[in-house]
Amino acid sequence: MTTQRVAIIGLGLIGGSVGLATQAMLPQIAVTGWDADPDVRRRAAERGLVTTVCDTAEDAVRDAELVILCVPVGAMEGAARAIAHALPQNAVVSDVGSSKRSVAEGLARALPGVTIIPAHPVAGTEKSGPDAGFSELFRHRWCIVTPPEGAPPEALQRVSDFWEGLGAKVEVMEAGHHDLVLAVTSHIPHLIAYTIVGTASDLEDVTRGEVIKYSAGGFRDFTRIAASDPTMWRDVFLSNRDAVLEVLGRFTEDLTALQRAIRNGDGDTLFDLFERTRAIRRSIIEEGQDDARPDFGRSDH
Amino acid sequence: MTTQRVAIIGLGLIGGSVGLATQAMLPQIAVTGWDADPDVRRRAAERGLVTTVCDTAEDAVRDAELVILCVPVGAMEGAARAIAHALPQNAVVSDVGSSKRSVAEGLARALPGVTIIPAHPVAGTEKSGPDAGFSELFRHRWCIVTPPEGAPPEALQRVSDFWEGLGAKVEVMEAGHHDLVLAVTSHIPHLIAYTIVGTASDLEDVTRGEVIKYSAGGFRDFTRIAASDPTMWRDVFLSNRDAVLEVLGRFTEDLTALQRAIRNGDGDTLFDLFERTRAIRRSIIEEGQDDARPDFGRSDH
Repeated sequence: MTTQRVAIIGLGLIGGSVGLATQAMLPQIAVTGWDADPDVRRRAAERGLVTTVCDTAEDAVRDAELVILCVPVGAMEGAARAIAHALPQNAVVSDVGSSKRSVAEGLARALPGVTIIPAHPVAGTEKSGPDAGFSELFRHRWCIVTPPEGAPPEALQRVSDFWEGLGAKVEVMEAGHHDLVLAVTSHIPHLIAYTIVGTASDLEDVTRGEVIKYSAGGFRDFTRIAASDPTMWRDVFLSNRDAVLEVLGRFTEDLTALQRAIRNGDGDTLFDLFERTRAIRRSIIEEGQDDARPDFGRSDH
Repeated sequence: MTTQRVAIIGLGLIGGSVGLATQAMLPQIAVTGWDADPDVRRRAAERGLVTTVCDTAEDAVRDAELVILCVPVGAMEGAARAIAHALPQNAVVSDVGSSKRSVAEGLARALPGVTIIPAHPVAGTEKSGPDAGFSELFRHRWCIVTPPEGAPPEALQRVSDFWEGLGAKVEVMEAGHHDLVLAVTSHIPHLIAYTIVGTASDLEDVTRGEVIKYSAGGFRDFTRIAASDPTMWRDVFLSNRDAVLEVLGRFTEDLTALQRAIRNGDGDTLFDLFERTRAIRRSIIEEGQDDARPDFGRSDH
């Protein structure tokens, strides 16, 4: 089942990268695209993010075999409604949202009878917008596909083949489990990073200039992910509320235990945890999920 | 006041880097060194971390004009006691500890009558031990010097000149203020990173393999600093307890407010914070305190 026409709705970091990657790695596919923002459409055309930038969402999807919604998760249902009447009979609709259960529900409401195969490429940078995308973003990264029960195997195959064609490694997972895994590996880290960056900038006794000046001590690692797109992340937390609150509860318990250890001068509890966390880092390096150079090579070691 | 003989006690990441940087950038200085661990002394001699690796701490400091203690902050007072009787009359004693008030108190207790000028180079990587050091570690990084009240200006000058000679930018600060600034910019970020990495590895419903596999979503940024030296960090939290608990209290309040916003579906509160934290990231890039490439260049963008 070869895909020849793909439509991308939303041309920011992810949508733009999907468009560039498709043109670079699957040149037999014609990619149409559309974005709600006319400035983004103009810029997308200038950069050639897709083969054809259309004037309406309907025009973009009219001939598509595969439609990929690349908008913030809170905008998915609306984006799906906007294309509902223009979708060809056998089109498969997918997305790239960071939470999957609520997106799947929204898409099913907006597109009754349509084959929907939600997906989530676990890749990104802290940049956003039509200038941020690049064709290599998904290479060697995971793409988690969460087909609903009873989804046609050939539709799942179409989506999986497409992402593998862009260089990604595909994993199939149940949507609810995806949401819990991502709460741990992505959503809570972002929430914590946003929080500590906010806390630091609100202190009375330490100036913002001092925070910035001495950020190399650890703080700067948090600021990178706390610079991610605000709309996207607001939507992620609201749409994956249950899993986020559950993991956040665990984190808060663990932090309270460390707080007590510090207050009581209990060095053994601290040391034991700090030893254990090193092992996780080693595994991440071994699995090729991060750069092994100290400091990510920032010190030009 | 030219320094010609420097002694380094402790030859791990920081001590080893001080030794290598001195030989590379201040070749007129003779550097002696010692470490409590015989294996580290052997490796230090093999790598040439200092000009002369001595067999005892006393031998290392016997002719020194400047002694730099590069041991975990909990070991500072003991290291100072070990050299007390061998210190030359006019030697200045300094250190590299990440907390300054408790270290200054410990050194004053151990070395009555000795001129002590504590310092803290804000530089490091997640690696530790005698193989981790490199001569460029301090270049363009800040070194905060916290002289006690009434410290002789020429001793402060000696320490400042030395660090500037290694490429660092020197800032003079009151010890208590240093401890608060570093609690924000370094200690709390490390504590949070250790906590979330621990939380993630203890969940029943998400396997450790899944956490590692999907860590590119944000989690991996935390694992880098959670791989830092356990002994060093245990000592930092215990020795800077008051400032750490104060900043941690603020962080917890802020996190609770976000938790409530997520529970209540209050997207505006989330969005406003996420917008604000972007500005901090921009400032850190502008001040040259981090790498501006998206993803630190990990995606080879």
